[in-house]
Amino acid sequence: MDLIIKNGTVITAKDTFKADIGVRDGKIEVITRSLDQMEAKQIIDATGNYVLPGALDAHTHLEMPFGGTVSSDSYEAGTRAAACGGTTTVFDFVIQGKGQGLVEAVEGRRALCEPQACVDYSFHTAITDLTPAVLKEFKQAVDYGINSFKVFMVYKKEGLMVDDGVMVRAMIRAKEVGARVSVHAENPDVIDMNIENFLKEGKTHAWYHYLSRPEYAEAEADKRAIHWAKSFNVPLYIVHLACKEGMDEVTRARQEGYDVIAETCPQYLYFTNEVYKREDGRNFVCSPPIKGPESQNALWDGIKRGDISIVATDHCPFQSYEKDWGKDDFTKIPNGCMGVENMYPYMLSEANRGRISFNKAVEVCSTNVAQLFGCAPQKGTIAPGSDADLVIYDPEKTYVISKDNMHSDVDYTIWEGVELKGYPVMTFSRGKLVYDNGNFVGEKGWGEFVKRTPLT
Amino acid sequence: MDLIIKNGTVITAKDTFKADIGVRDGKIEVITRSLDQMEAKQIIDATGNYVLPGALDAHTHLEMPFGGTVSSDSYEAGTRAAACGGTTTVFDFVIQGKGQGLVEAVEGRRALCEPQACVDYSFHTAITDLTPAVLKEFKQAVDYGINSFKVFMVYKKEGLMVDDGVMVRAMIRAKEVGARVSVHAENPDVIDMNIENFLKEGKTHAWYHYLSRPEYAEAEADKRAIHWAKSFNVPLYIVHLACKEGMDEVTRARQEGYDVIAETCPQYLYFTNEVYKREDGRNFVCSPPIKGPESQNALWDGIKRGDISIVATDHCPFQSYEKDWGKDDFTKIPNGCMGVENMYPYMLSEANRGRISFNKAVEVCSTNVAQLFGCAPQKGTIAPGSDADLVIYDPEKTYVISKDNMHSDVDYTIWEGVELKGYPVMTFSRGKLVYDNGNFVGEKGWGEFVKRTPLT
Amino acid sequence: MDLIIKNGTVITAKDTFKADIGVRDGKIEVITRSLDQMEAKQIIDATGNYVLPGALDAHTHLEMPFGGTVSSDSYEAGTRAAACGGTTTVFDFVIQGKGQGLVEAVEGRRALCEPQACVDYSFHTAITDLTPAVLKEFKQAVDYGINSFKVFMVYKKEGLMVDDGVMVRAMIRAKEVGARVSVHAENPDVIDMNIENFLKEGKTHAWYHYLSRPEYAEAEADKRAIHWAKSFNVPLYIVHLACKEGMDEVTRARQEGYDVIAETCPQYLYFTNEVYKREDGRNFVCSPPIKGPESQNALWDGIKRGDISIVATDHCPFQSYEKDWGKDDFTKIPNGCMGVENMYPYMLSEANRGRISFNKAVEVCSTNVAQLFGCAPQKGTIAPGSDADLVIYDPEKTYVISKDNMHSDVDYTIWEGVELKGYPVMTFSRGKLVYDNGNFVGEKGWGEFVKRTPLT
Amino acid sequence: MDLIIKNGTVITAKDTFKADIGVRDGKIEVITRSLDQMEAKQIIDATGNYVLPGALDAHTHLEMPFGGTVSSDSYEAGTRAAACGGTTTVFDFVIQGKGQGLVEAVEGRRALCEPQACVDYSFHTAITDLTPAVLKEFKQAVDYGINSFKVFMVYKKEGLMVDDGVMVRAMIRAKEVGARVSVHAENPDVIDMNIENFLKEGKTHAWYHYLSRPEYAEAEADKRAIHWAKSFNVPLYIVHLACKEGMDEVTRARQEGYDVIAETCPQYLYFTNEVYKREDGRNFVCSPPIKGPESQNALWDGIKRGDISIVATDHCPFQSYEKDWGKDDFTKIPNGCMGVENMYPYMLSEANRGRISFNKAVEVCSTNVAQLFGCAPQKGTIAPGSDADLVIYDPEKTYVISKDNMHSDVDYTIWEGVELKGYPVMTFSRGKLVYDNGNFVGEKGWGEFVKRTPLT
Repeated sequence: MDLIIKNGTVITAKDTFKADIGVRDGKIEVITRSLDQMEAKQIIDATGNYVLPGALDAHTHLEMPFGGTVSSDSYEAGTRAAACGGTTTVFDFVIQGKGQGLVEAVEGRRALCEPQACVDYSFHTAITDLTPAVLKEFKQAVDYGINSFKVFMVYKKEGLMVDDGVMVRAMIRAKEVGARVSVHAENPDVIDMNIENFLKEGKTHAWYHYLSRPEYAEAEADKRAIHWAKSFNVPLYIVHLACKEGMDEVTRARQEGYDVIAETCPQYLYFTNEVYKREDGRNFVCSPPIKGPESQNALWDGIKRGDISIVATDHCPFQSYEKDWGKDDFTKIPNGCMGVENMYPYMLSEANRGRISFNKAVEVCSTNVAQLFGCAPQKGTIAPGSDADLVIYDPEKTYVISKDNMHSDVDYTIWEGVELKGYPVMTFSRGKLVYDNGNFVGEKGWGEFVKRTPLT
Repeated sequence: MDLIIKNGTVITAKDTFKADIGVRDGKIEVITRSLDQMEAKQIIDATGNYVLPGALDAHTHLEMPFGGTVSSDSYEAGTRAAACGGTTTVFDFVIQGKGQGLVEAVEGRRALCEPQACVDYSFHTAITDLTPAVLKEFKQAVDYGINSFKVFMVYKKEGLMVDDGVMVRAMIRAKEVGARVSVHAENPDVIDMNIENFLKEGKTHAWYHYLSRPEYAEAEADKRAIHWAKSFNVPLYIVHLACKEGMDEVTRARQEGYDVIAETCPQYLYFTNEVYKREDGRNFVCSPPIKGPESQNALWDGIKRGDISIVATDHCPFQSYEKDWGKDDFTKIPNGCMGVENMYPYMLSEANRGRISFNKAVEVCSTNVAQLFGCAPQKGTIAPGSDADLVIYDPEKTYVISKDNMHSDVDYTIWEGVELKGYPVMTFSRGKLVYDNGNFVGEKGWGEFVKRTPLT
Repeated sequence: MDLIIKNGTVITAKDTFKADIGVRDGKIEVITRSLDQMEAKQIIDATGNYVLPGALDAHTHLEMPFGGTVSSDSYEAGTRAAACGGTTTVFDFVIQGKGQGLVEAVEGRRALCEPQACVDYSFHTAITDLTPAVLKEFKQAVDYGINSFKVFMVYKKEGLMVDDGVMVRAMIRAKEVGARVSVHAENPDVIDMNIENFLKEGKTHAWYHYLSRPEYAEAEADKRAIHWAKSFNVPLYIVHLACKEGMDEVTRARQEGYDVIAETCPQYLYFTNEVYKREDGRNFVCSPPIKGPESQNALWDGIKRGDISIVATDHCPFQSYEKDWGKDDFTKIPNGCMGVENMYPYMLSEANRGRISFNKAVEVCSTNVAQLFGCAPQKGTIAPGSDADLVIYDPEKTYVISKDNMHSDVDYTIWEGVELKGYPVMTFSRGKLVYDNGNFVGEKGWGEFVKRTPLT
Repeated sequence: MDLIIKNGTVITAKDTFKADIGVRDGKIEVITRSLDQMEAKQIIDATGNYVLPGALDAHTHLEMPFGGTVSSDSYEAGTRAAACGGTTTVFDFVIQGKGQGLVEAVEGRRALCEPQACVDYSFHTAITDLTPAVLKEFKQAVDYGINSFKVFMVYKKEGLMVDDGVMVRAMIRAKEVGARVSVHAENPDVIDMNIENFLKEGKTHAWYHYLSRPEYAEAEADKRAIHWAKSFNVPLYIVHLACKEGMDEVTRARQEGYDVIAETCPQYLYFTNEVYKREDGRNFVCSPPIKGPESQNALWDGIKRGDISIVATDHCPFQSYEKDWGKDDFTKIPNGCMGVENMYPYMLSEANRGRISFNKAVEVCSTNVAQLFGCAPQKGTIAPGSDADLVIYDPEKTYVISKDNMHSDVDYTIWEGVELKGYPVMTFSRGKLVYDNGNFVGEKGWGEFVKRTPLT
């Protein structure tokens, strides 16, 4: 064996049991009651610790051009941080340029990512120019290993928004080729009306970012996207769901048997809109904004009930000097927050505190991502033949998040000072130790592209 | 007395009782057990008949320029037909021209209507160009007697559509001045997508009019309009509601205590989408189109439950040669059907057959319109001091609707051959007999403008 | 004319208008813009006042043997108080004795009531012994003028409770004969479990009356009764509905089109369960007990929405010395509160304060009772030919309820100190003045039995 | 190794992967990509087959005295049949005698079962006499390894029924000691009313068994039990849920976050109430009876959604001569059907046909039972250290169920002629082959008592 992890408690999305794990050639070779007699290049004693599948972050924006700048974490920095937070695969978004082909767009970003990646990666595409040729190319994208296409219901001026007709065309075509459309759901016109009103009244603090797109601004678009998914009976994935009313509609659709999947993010689960009243409120500015406590509770209930399928980060940080652009005008704040290093530790900490089970944390951060996006059982579980993407988790450790112990390239973190109960002590990517008790020990260029299979 | 109606059974929205009615100077003077000893210029014996308040048709489009032509019924023809169907007040829509003031727009149409009107009339305005000046002018419009402003969520190419931001601005402003926004709710982009697909495939029959804007196309917009009404806690009036899912959402909003009011039309209550498969399907083309039986049932249930407040006609007929323009292309069919002469007789016939009570028919066709739009108790009931807008109804009469017995100027009727149980035998407009057993006996120019009061 | 009421504003369940009213032989003879030229024995100037139909109290227990004593208000005292509160008809409950026939039971009580009644009266029967003969006798009871049969889902030890099989048999039979079953809905076994537990723990204050039968104890039975009404598609009337969950279920059933009617009482609308914590909490003891504020709000919403059809009193007072029996043991407190003189003034005061419309207050206290229980338009409205049961209401008057200004025979009132905005100044029973500005001016024996007609 | 299963596809409740499995001392020792080099006493080549955890049947009645006889399958016959259907643990019901202690009752049945058991077993107790002593004894029962107590809401005359007060007491106490109450939910009084009516009318065929306790009879009790679980916030397990309305209420409760768990049975998933019209309808008589297709669909939807947690059999067969007792009187038919050998094959066949995933079939028939009733990961999954209760399943096999290929002692099967796609070819109980391609190869007395741990 290349690696043996002994005496740990293995936790998957459904099971919990004591076992030793043997790894060979980057794959899990064996799971057994005891590997005492086996030899191995590396032996880890996980006594008292949990052994978990690495997380898959279904939603990142690394070195993405946006809002007149580029998101702060390069592919290297972002995947390095991921590794240090127990995330062993990231799904990054490729924004289609006007007139650009989908596979061409993906290949461009893949070439950028490949030499930098510290953990494995896949891509979603974001459709901005749905020509007939692009619709046709959905098939080739799926063949290439990409089965997820995103559309924006908002960002009109930014040229990202599509209308309902385009969204529905994409949804129908996606279903034909075994793929799924995901949506950023917010209502552009009412948000613009609010912004115009606030600016006219001189209301420019980050709090007005929230007030210009509060619960109702997201909920309308959530409901509309679900309406079309139901009307045309096509799969839907709602990214970064953040409000109660949207959550309720997702639940209703799922109860009625529709293939509607929702993702939420750790920032919506831990913070509330109160953060926007803070002096540094702009650092928390993302879209959709963080909502009130009623929404937060609804999201947690959705996780418990199984109506939130995935927790992902929407990791899209900007440096504080960039956030400062919006000090006197919330519309100038680049939208996005960090989280790729925090998601799994945070969710596991909540499990450790009893809010959800550890199995549930594994399910939403890892297993469901792999299964719903077509890379299970390679990813997302602990089973013979699966990639040895493993996290050793110490439930007794106390950890206080700080800019100083984070591994991304950003000069602050919105998670500053948050105390977690339990923390990952090691991360393995395909059997290779990439994070060891506070330190990144992997290497850039190690990460590989994960080809995904069509939905069935 | 000028007029005495004796021995009839008086039916109002809540009560049913035997009484004699005395009219003086166009007003109801007295309601009493017996006027035997009184003298009067005209005495009507209503023995065996019902005496009802005249209907108010909350939704007509008379001589309206639309689709490259003008709706077929002039103010004279439309109000003449109304009189003959027991409708004693019509609410016509004034479409604001680009750059035009609201009161200016209303006065233009009022001047056109005044010399023609055979019964009383009021106006709604339809907003197409919501400048800050127009927003401000809402107040003057209300002072003028107009407390209802319509917006279109559809008809993008026709230049009528407004976006959600505009709609919400109008709603908020309307509430401030004691008025109500009404909406034509359909989703433009998905309809356009469908139309494009159908035309590409050579599917041009009227049936594809329905298929291009089926239940889901209306339901989305119903839900969206209601979402905004609830989010901003403002009054809403949904005109020509025609689908179950929209009905359900209206009901939910009302249960939650929101001021959401819905109108449906007799064509949605009697016909189903099957009519579009007929050879003459184009004659039934209106928007939103008539839906399937599930929707029809839901609308009737809504009436019974009180969640449909108003039945009105959306009367907007075109001559058959105009309808024929769309023989080979459903997008060329002028949208609109007739109904102003049929609504009250049809609803009363359904009452007579036991589907609803007569009180309910009076409530939705008459009393609620007057109360919700600010002209009660002048209109919409039988009470001392109210206008003597009265209908004598013979419950035993059998009536078969035909182009030949209708009084509008259109050369066909979608109601051809429909058999009714019971029919109005006389209509009085402010005490003046205007319809007498099959014949129009009123005169043009008789009708007066009804000034309405703000909502409280 | 015998009586003319001039210059008042007439308010019925749907309409509001200025008119003069003329009364002859106890009936409303004429409603008119002006009776100036008329002569009359009595002329009332109602300038500035409202003229309303007298209320019908659908739920009283006068001189009823219960809990080892007899409810304190005799037929005389109860109907006298009713008159002074603007209530011109009371529906009293006749409890069938074991083995007793229904008509026999009614006649016994009618004989007791007749010489005492100060206003008109009708009866409901309460079934305690549903033999095949009694089931058959439902028909004769309806012929006699009684179309409402009550069953108790609680009071096992008292011998009043029936099981679900008996309740369903009664419901089915009632429907056959044009009648309606009403239910007192509470769950006996869980209440008994609670009581046993509390007494064992020495918890004996009135607060434990509430805690032994809180929201859930009523809600279960509400839901069960509605379940059977829906399952067998039979009419149902739930008396004294007092909890949110029951209200929700009533609403759902009505939305689905079932003939389920609910009554609530003024004590549930004004007080909350906090009263049971008071030193004199026992005085408020009734069953079901008054619930928490969430239920109170739900009941008011139900009234506004139309899902509460009737407000009635469950008037069943006991003297304070009798209430004192339960000072040290809440199970010994005779159950019941007073309200017959307070209901209409309280509901009208709430209308006057803007919570509901005056029309709605009239509808639930008067018109709906008459229509749903088969005595309209004789009762419950202001129309020619109806009984001249009229209330003159001064909206400007301020009134503070006190034992001293009440007209029943009880030595306290739970309404002590409650301030009302507006108050009745006169009550007419069939044209006879029975209440005049604080004083009862009627006479016992005046009231007549109201024969009701079968439901259709 | 004692046993190696090679080349199979392992399917657990959440994962699917190819692996070899090694078993030692009755436990799963190792799960690995390849055990090629290992030696073992027994090597099974599972190429092309699935390897599944054995099922746990959460609901059987073996040699149970009931209805004047004893259910036909002895512990030996029942557990033999279980083994042949891939079920490796059965949960049998111990009915407490009047005055009997719970542990005493369990020990009596355990002594009976022990020498006969062909697979492992556990017990639920059914409470019929809830004295204070018995309430107290719940704790000892849990210590003994029994954490589930059943009550009957029906079977009044049979002396099994408890009232709501007793049920609630049991629920509250169960929660205190880490246990769960399960209920047989039907309404006794309305069923008795129906039976009395039918017998009076001479309606005696099995069809009237259904008609006397149709959907509404079960739904009422489902809703009532859930009402109490919610009101007192205690866990609930509804056994043999069979109707849509009950399913809907379970779903609602779970959505609201309550610990309400539902079980359904294969007979409710495959058959509909039409079977009761058959000549041999009496053979299908069980309580609650099989319902209509709407209920069947709702139950399947509940399984898909996760609102049915467990599929179990309610296996309680009687010989045909015993069923014949009710030929001319449906009330004389012993209630109960067979299924212990059919459940897992049927559910896996439905998975094989695409109705649900194989993971879902494993989850509801095996993993959830173990996890919810406190014996995971010993039972219910495939993991190192778990009991080697394994099923080798051939997805290509076609199997037609017949009395002749079943292994219970009953002389017919309601599943006669049902064709399944795929079938178990081997069953291992703790590593011992007990079923081999059509033949029982185990031995009685092999099965062991499964001690369960308290709920947390």
